[in-house]
Amino acid sequence: MNSKKNDILSTLHIPADLRKLNISQLPQVCDELRKFIIEELSHNPGHFASSLGAIELTVALHYVFNTPYDRIVWDVGHQAYSHKILTGRKDLFSTNRKFKGISGFPNPKESEYDAFIAGHASNSISAALGMAVAANLKHENDQKVIAVIGDASISGGLAFEGLNNAAINPNNLLIILNDNDMAIDHNVGALNEYLIKLTTSPRYNRLRYKVYLALRRLNLVTEESKGFILRFNNSLKALIGRRQNIFEGLNIRYFGPLDGHDVGTMVRVLNDIKDMTGPKLLHLRTVKGKGYAPAEKAATEWHAPGKFNIETGERIIPNSNNLPPLFQDVFGLTLLELAEKNEKIVGITPAMPTGCSMTYMMNKYPHRTFDVGIAEEHAVTFSGGLAKEGLIPFCNIYSTFMQRAFDEVIHDVAIQNLHVIFCLDRAGLVGEDGVTHHGAFDLSYMRCIPNMTIASPMNEHYLRHLMYTAQAEDTGVFTIRYPRGRGVLTDWKCTPKLLEIGKGRKLKDGNDIALISIGPIGNIAAKAIEKAEEAGASIAHYDMIFLKPIDEGILHEIGRKFKRIVTVEDGSIKGGLGIAVLEFMSDNNYTPRIKRIGIPDQFIEHGTIAELYKLCKMDEENIRNILVSEW
Amino acid sequence: MNSKKNDILSTLHIPADLRKLNISQLPQVCDELRKFIIEELSHNPGHFASSLGAIELTVALHYVFNTPYDRIVWDVGHQAYSHKILTGRKDLFSTNRKFKGISGFPNPKESEYDAFIAGHASNSISAALGMAVAANLKHENDQKVIAVIGDASISGGLAFEGLNNAAINPNNLLIILNDNDMAIDHNVGALNEYLIKLTTSPRYNRLRYKVYLALRRLNLVTEESKGFILRFNNSLKALIGRRQNIFEGLNIRYFGPLDGHDVGTMVRVLNDIKDMTGPKLLHLRTVKGKGYAPAEKAATEWHAPGKFNIETGERIIPNSNNLPPLFQDVFGLTLLELAEKNEKIVGITPAMPTGCSMTYMMNKYPHRTFDVGIAEEHAVTFSGGLAKEGLIPFCNIYSTFMQRAFDEVIHDVAIQNLHVIFCLDRAGLVGEDGVTHHGAFDLSYMRCIPNMTIASPMNEHYLRHLMYTAQAEDTGVFTIRYPRGRGVLTDWKCTPKLLEIGKGRKLKDGNDIALISIGPIGNIAAKAIEKAEEAGASIAHYDMIFLKPIDEGILHEIGRKFKRIVTVEDGSIKGGLGIAVLEFMSDNNYTPRIKRIGIPDQFIEHGTIAELYKLCKMDEENIRNILVSEW
Repeated sequence: MNSKKNDILSTLHIPADLRKLNISQLPQVCDELRKFIIEELSHNPGHFASSLGAIELTVALHYVFNTPYDRIVWDVGHQAYSHKILTGRKDLFSTNRKFKGISGFPNPKESEYDAFIAGHASNSISAALGMAVAANLKHENDQKVIAVIGDASISGGLAFEGLNNAAINPNNLLIILNDNDMAIDHNVGALNEYLIKLTTSPRYNRLRYKVYLALRRLNLVTEESKGFILRFNNSLKALIGRRQNIFEGLNIRYFGPLDGHDVGTMVRVLNDIKDMTGPKLLHLRTVKGKGYAPAEKAATEWHAPGKFNIETGERIIPNSNNLPPLFQDVFGLTLLELAEKNEKIVGITPAMPTGCSMTYMMNKYPHRTFDVGIAEEHAVTFSGGLAKEGLIPFCNIYSTFMQRAFDEVIHDVAIQNLHVIFCLDRAGLVGEDGVTHHGAFDLSYMRCIPNMTIASPMNEHYLRHLMYTAQAEDTGVFTIRYPRGRGVLTDWKCTPKLLEIGKGRKLKDGNDIALISIGPIGNIAAKAIEKAEEAGASIAHYDMIFLKPIDEGILHEIGRKFKRIVTVEDGSIKGGLGIAVLEFMSDNNYTPRIKRIGIPDQFIEHGTIAELYKLCKMDEENIRNILVSEW
Repeated sequence: MNSKKNDILSTLHIPADLRKLNISQLPQVCDELRKFIIEELSHNPGHFASSLGAIELTVALHYVFNTPYDRIVWDVGHQAYSHKILTGRKDLFSTNRKFKGISGFPNPKESEYDAFIAGHASNSISAALGMAVAANLKHENDQKVIAVIGDASISGGLAFEGLNNAAINPNNLLIILNDNDMAIDHNVGALNEYLIKLTTSPRYNRLRYKVYLALRRLNLVTEESKGFILRFNNSLKALIGRRQNIFEGLNIRYFGPLDGHDVGTMVRVLNDIKDMTGPKLLHLRTVKGKGYAPAEKAATEWHAPGKFNIETGERIIPNSNNLPPLFQDVFGLTLLELAEKNEKIVGITPAMPTGCSMTYMMNKYPHRTFDVGIAEEHAVTFSGGLAKEGLIPFCNIYSTFMQRAFDEVIHDVAIQNLHVIFCLDRAGLVGEDGVTHHGAFDLSYMRCIPNMTIASPMNEHYLRHLMYTAQAEDTGVFTIRYPRGRGVLTDWKCTPKLLEIGKGRKLKDGNDIALISIGPIGNIAAKAIEKAEEAGASIAHYDMIFLKPIDEGILHEIGRKFKRIVTVEDGSIKGGLGIAVLEFMSDNNYTPRIKRIGIPDQFIEHGTIAELYKLCKMDEENIRNILVSEW
């Protein structure tokens, strides 16, 4: 990393400033950006490796294109930190991912330079295509639209649908394929292998690139010779053979692969191709973690590494001795235990083996564990196929991403009532990842599905009991949801036991109010009850465990005894536990007053989970206040 | 069509019977099947053209493969009538699509020969891959799994995710690509054009096919020479050039294209390739409506033609003079009217321009109307992109298929509160298409989404008012749902008027019970009210129009006045209008008794809509009985 004297970055407030620089200054801008990001993220954690990999690309894009009039649509947006820094948010960057600070992902609410929302993978091509077609319909033919998509995201079905439609309507879309051969974990899938072949083919692409560079050196490619590369491509193709690549098969002009860290060449190539009509794709090879050696070596670890020591490359991992385990580890280790005893168990994850800790099983039983890449829909239907033949799939998908596979859950699993166990990780509010990532809706969208069993454990022991119960016999389709982060029990390795499906439990008796909770938020509710009882209240507490089927015995007991009920859940109040309780009480002619605590009917931004709980009035103090107030 | 003397078909009860025949008898079986299907469907309507196109393929598959031990997974299943007839359901075929009769789609509940559920496009590859991987894990290596997918379905994102994963785990999956160049409407998308090129390429594939046939004639390809074709393919490839097709790019061995109506050749090729290891794809060219001239000429019309005269090819279209219009036509004609006045309006449909009647706008404004093929996710995100740039997309998707795009509605539209108007056609119970096609869940899954406006018109006028209102100003994300079939007003061409968003209307006063309805089922409720009042009851009737935001003024009026409320909706009772009313009454301390009428929490099979309404106790008589009974 160069350390130049003159600080250019501090003079760049908006991309128009960048565009005033000479092309020869761009490498220094990249160096300074890299230094800034490394420095900043070493003490203010965020998405590290992807952002380092996209620095040169980002500089080249804002240098060549007239942003914000030209639209850059980022996919996922892990990669968009330099974009944020170059578009007026450098001084705000220390608030990245913090409550009321800037978002970790592009968001049009935050900046006119953020052309579209990003967070869930694979949406950029379709969104950008809509924008490019709109530019054409509005006769704004000078407006450029660029989708920047990673090689992991492009394997999602939505991205393919976008590619398949890119050529059927007039548009000038430019797709940048940022190919670093990685999702958060190592990338999988045939398309990925295909991309590797493309970039390593000695016969065609390398030659094409070399010829291009040679022509450049001879000044045969000039800024004025727009369209030249196209002709050059065609003639080269005629020269080399009829090999056609997948993108060309879909009528998208293909350019590349180029070195995505050579900012000067990228600027020249982008200038050459930017005015060509019709959809086109530029394939860049980049390195995740580029320019910071420890991250280049271990990109998965450095995807979001937390704090670290810049000099030593040591990640500063908070001491977790005597802390309760992560729910993720309880899931992963329990799955391994169960898989050791039940050979029918298989594990499926769409690109999140590390995040959900399926790696424990994957390491021991690689042939029974399937990372299908970013492909939630396939993960679910593939699980349906496995279950139809008698295997028992544990299909682990983050709650927010399961929205992608809602139809497959209904159509390919629930109608046939197949024995698939869906484990929804990151359910409820997830904290810093914010508005696109909260698992707010799963209780609502799963509850309307017939045949579906839905459960959520209050602690690690119940996660183990639920996982054990779900695989012990054919229970049909079974969903277990649990949050990101730590549980509450340091001594979590209990013997898993068989639960009765649809049975909750009474945690404590009381006389004034029945508090009914589901999931780990029940622990916060329990503390609120303690505080409320210190103030003289008498509160009964029930942990339902199952949302569906719901424990009617418990609810009759509550309906008969209590005039006031509080429901507590870490999910939208428009469709989970609170609604189920309302429904039961109404159907059975009980008329208690019911207060429902949960995520309100609005999109929630980012912050720590504690801050967001407070915002949503789901924190201990608010629950206590409701328990002791008059109503 | 040959009319042979000997009736072979009547001797075939299960596929094992078929396998006893000589290969030379198969064309006659196909002829008899064709005759049977044409005869049967002429008076008992069903999916006609697709089924005729897949006859030879179906015979070849059951002849070569050891069904049901070998698994055939049909995609969609429009094409599966001959499969049903050959697998023990010939005598039941007259009950096809009828209440308590056999389903129009494959369904494992019905037969062990139906390996997986079918109905929503594009699921077959993922499901079959799961089954093939399971066979491998269970060491049942002699078990074959075949996915049969159409060229329209293969463009769906889920199918691509399946293709992209087909080669990463050991399996022997065979994919049959039944390529007739049609969805229900003409097929679109780059992949489709690509397939046409594949099948018309004079350089490689045709030659390969001809060489293959020549070798066959010389007896150089024998039943014993398994694996020969592979070597032959490879050497031919070396001979002809390095052209690589998309499937081979995804590591799936590609065979074809073959004539999908030459049953003998198909049998030979299937025998040659069936024992090859690894995933493979056989590309067949077929003709929709094959063997029935009128259907070959106009396959869209003959997709599901209703009754027809076999001799003349005349479709027997019931006299619709003086009948109310189809909601579909009201949508299509109103969209055209609005588009004429508001040039920002654009129309988007995933492969259903005829079904939803967007054809009216498409014919007049082809550049403002987008049929994106079977790609619901893309349809939604693409609409988001169009809206982000100031256009006003009417995105029409059948309710049941919108499940596919649930995440895109949340992530790509609702978070940004983009002005996209979703028109959910076929909402509620759809009748004969049955369990996979009912639009039962939309009110539930849409209601939990923040920012979402949800409305349903009681009649044609209100559909026009709602469409007008949704485009008149930026209302954010706006959903209008309406059912399949006819409305209630013959004089439907009113002047559209601006509705106040979130305002319902009182249709009549009453004293005993408030009946609250949404959507066209309100007309049934109105008749039930008439009958109940004849028996002495006094019922108020409210048409909410909007589920969200819900009219709190009306609900306060009801809460203050009534001790009994009945809610009526054509949607799951687990999350729509009934729940919204419960929620409001509880939150505002009203304690009426509430009875919720809607689709119960179970999967509903097929039948006429009237039969299914009765089954679900949503018919006039049941509603009346609730209104007059004591509770």
